Amino acid sequence: MDNTIIRRAREGRIDDEMRKIAEAEGVSPEKLRDRIAKGQVVYIRNVKWPSEKVVAIGKGLSTKINVNLGTSTEVVDLDSELKKVEVANKWGDTLMDLSVGGDLDAIRRAVISKSKLPVGTVPVYQAFIEAFNKRSGGAYFTIDDLFNTIERQLKDGVAFMTIHAAVTKEAAIRVLKSDRVIPVVSRGGDMIIGWMLHNDAENPYLTHWDYLLELFAQYDAVISIGDALRPGAVADAHDEFHVGELVEAARLAKRAIKAGVQVMIEGPGHVPLNDVIWTIKLEKRLTGGVPYYVLGPLPTDVAAPYDHIASAVGAALAAAAGADLLCYITPAEHLSLPTVEQVEQGAIAYRIAAHIGDVVKLGRKARRWDDEVSYYRGRLMWDEMIKRLVDPERAYKVYTQYGPPKVKGCTMCGGYCPMNMVIQQARRLK
Amino acid sequence: MDNTIIRRAREGRIDDEMRKIAEAEGVSPEKLRDRIAKGQVVYIRNVKWPSEKVVAIGKGLSTKINVNLGTSTEVVDLDSELKKVEVANKWGDTLMDLSVGGDLDAIRRAVISKSKLPVGTVPVYQAFIEAFNKRSGGAYFTIDDLFNTIERQLKDGVAFMTIHAAVTKEAAIRVLKSDRVIPVVSRGGDMIIGWMLHNDAENPYLTHWDYLLELFAQYDAVISIGDALRPGAVADAHDEFHVGELVEAARLAKRAIKAGVQVMIEGPGHVPLNDVIWTIKLEKRLTGGVPYYVLGPLPTDVAAPYDHIASAVGAALAAAAGADLLCYITPAEHLSLPTVEQVEQGAIAYRIAAHIGDVVKLGRKARRWDDEVSYYRGRLMWDEMIKRLVDPERAYKVYTQYGPPKVKGCTMCGGYCPMNMVIQQARRLK
Repeated sequence: MDNTIIRRAREGRIDDEMRKIAEAEGVSPEKLRDRIAKGQVVYIRNVKWPSEKVVAIGKGLSTKINVNLGTSTEVVDLDSELKKVEVANKWGDTLMDLSVGGDLDAIRRAVISKSKLPVGTVPVYQAFIEAFNKRSGGAYFTIDDLFNTIERQLKDGVAFMTIHAAVTKEAAIRVLKSDRVIPVVSRGGDMIIGWMLHNDAENPYLTHWDYLLELFAQYDAVISIGDALRPGAVADAHDEFHVGELVEAARLAKRAIKAGVQVMIEGPGHVPLNDVIWTIKLEKRLTGGVPYYVLGPLPTDVAAPYDHIASAVGAALAAAAGADLLCYITPAEHLSLPTVEQVEQGAIAYRIAAHIGDVVKLGRKARRWDDEVSYYRGRLMWDEMIKRLVDPERAYKVYTQYGPPKVKGCTMCGGYCPMNMVIQQARRLK
Repeated sequence: MDNTIIRRAREGRIDDEMRKIAEAEGVSPEKLRDRIAKGQVVYIRNVKWPSEKVVAIGKGLSTKINVNLGTSTEVVDLDSELKKVEVANKWGDTLMDLSVGGDLDAIRRAVISKSKLPVGTVPVYQAFIEAFNKRSGGAYFTIDDLFNTIERQLKDGVAFMTIHAAVTKEAAIRVLKSDRVIPVVSRGGDMIIGWMLHNDAENPYLTHWDYLLELFAQYDAVISIGDALRPGAVADAHDEFHVGELVEAARLAKRAIKAGVQVMIEGPGHVPLNDVIWTIKLEKRLTGGVPYYVLGPLPTDVAAPYDHIASAVGAALAAAAGADLLCYITPAEHLSLPTVEQVEQGAIAYRIAAHIGDVVKLGRKARRWDDEVSYYRGRLMWDEMIKRLVDPERAYKVYTQYGPPKVKGCTMCGGYCPMNMVIQQARRLK
């Protein structure tokens, strides 16, 4: 039996990486180990090329963010994708290569080489695309093709994979016949649905779950159970399809943990803001605390090309309520493949959303950062303040956008800076 | 006695403007009238040059957004400020001229002329600045100076004014001696504090509240009770100063309503996300539902130059919880006077935040917009979808940023567009 992280944690072992993470996160190594053993924390790293940044995700830890990138069939530009990897290295905690255009193996390997972060994929893309190219139909891949693709990617060092195991054939048929505003918006999920319909067969991930667990145990990689039926419109949130798939995912996650395989569950999409807190609690309740990896949530359908902002609203609230890994959304969402700049805008918005959540989730531990910034802000110590902001470089540019301020305050209030007046008033009172 | 809107509403009268607003907001004119009578809805318009857009703010109505603009001592560029007015006309519901540099009367009149929206001001700025220029000390204005300034601005057609009446001398002295991270961040509020300290006298707005009410009744303008002690760091939220001032503001608001003068209360600033919902409920409870006009709230101190994004998180949640008017924050907040473009970025972020809130606050009435967008989105009817988005022009630019897509989907998934695959799958099942 492969000695996976969960199994080692269950034996009570604490390795050096665990200690390092525990220290960085400000929790005790014992607590971290126990949570890994229970499946409440996952611990992702690049198996083949150990990444510089080992990432732990889950209970009691800071909220992490994932940066998606990758080619499309219409735009294949490896240079640009590798620049996105650099952006992810700067701002993100994990990244996913979602390429569907060009030489998928070569792109994935280049991304993994360049990435300092653990890299995730959605392996059904490659199985589907290769079947499309070789057999003239995306759904014509065999179960062997699918699992061979997964193993090929694991060998390359993919650290986690979205596995759309929780959508059953029956649910797929019902959702396609339903009056949902948009029946399915998950690209990988719909490839699995296409396969089930074409083959008139149950979801191969579901029928071969135990085999999949063995494979992931062998490479000690993390399964991220995908949400093929996630809502793609706020009107569709928390219908029977959305919640039914979560129930199935929770069952599968428990089997994974029992088998010693680390697992996360993927969630949200479009969800109205009043449902965000409890949808996180629901996942935690159903699963006993399996890390929740949520896209957005996006609390409105109308905001493109500002879905990075609209979804940061949902993401911050989700993080505050206990979401563990936030999948970012860029300003190009719903409209286009994102540019490098749009990837960065999305990543920064999510870095901020994660911290807003952490101020709630972790309390003083996270708020220390805010307190420091405000300490220097109130004293008009601009350099000290700006260098502590989330993006000092851009902050400095804005601070000096009308030329370096000639006053103690900034160009907003100029001579009537309240902070400056207050400093003098307080001095006089002493 | 001047026949103010509240007084007319109390007499049971429904005027044409009320009917127009009721229809636009989808509420009955009777309900709107009764809420105006109770002070739960205010109704702002430019008295002298009736604005094209009469704005009602409060219970049961869509969330409104306010756009701040105005010169500083360091940057006086009327052209640029008037461009900001155009941005406000496009995206906003109300605007405030917060100019503190240049010829304040001339700027204000130009802004009011150009504005289609009701214009607000903070009159103590002008009293303070004129005293600074004429008497070599900002705090050297007399009570007559202050009220003359207010009347001059009302005559110009200012529709609402921030009146920092709720900060007492005692609270001001205590806050300046306190261990708050930043004692005071309100520019106008601190001018009043400076006056109280210099004159060793109580807040002139507080001592002359009845006179002020008469003046506002005469012009039938709206008082917005300012929050001089609003928290400027998340660590300072909901301390005795913040909450104490709200309690005082609630008392003053009740006196205003009784006197037939429309009133709002200003709130938040920096507030951690877990306190946003109840801070709105607190104001509603203390006041019996006086419209709450909140800045942000900003749930972290570290996000500049992205405070428009960080605060949109707080603003959306506040709106969902019942906040009525959201004062926007731009990417320049905490760093600089905003440029025209930054004003627009802030306004758009808040338009989105207000709608996210309304999807919760107003339910289906607000969600119709989302449902329409998603209907066309799911059918890949791009032109129909894009023209319904919050910013169709920019959305179209992003949609075509790699050239017009050559596929039915967009450049994100290209040939593997899930929506396109789903349409075919659903068709085959029928």
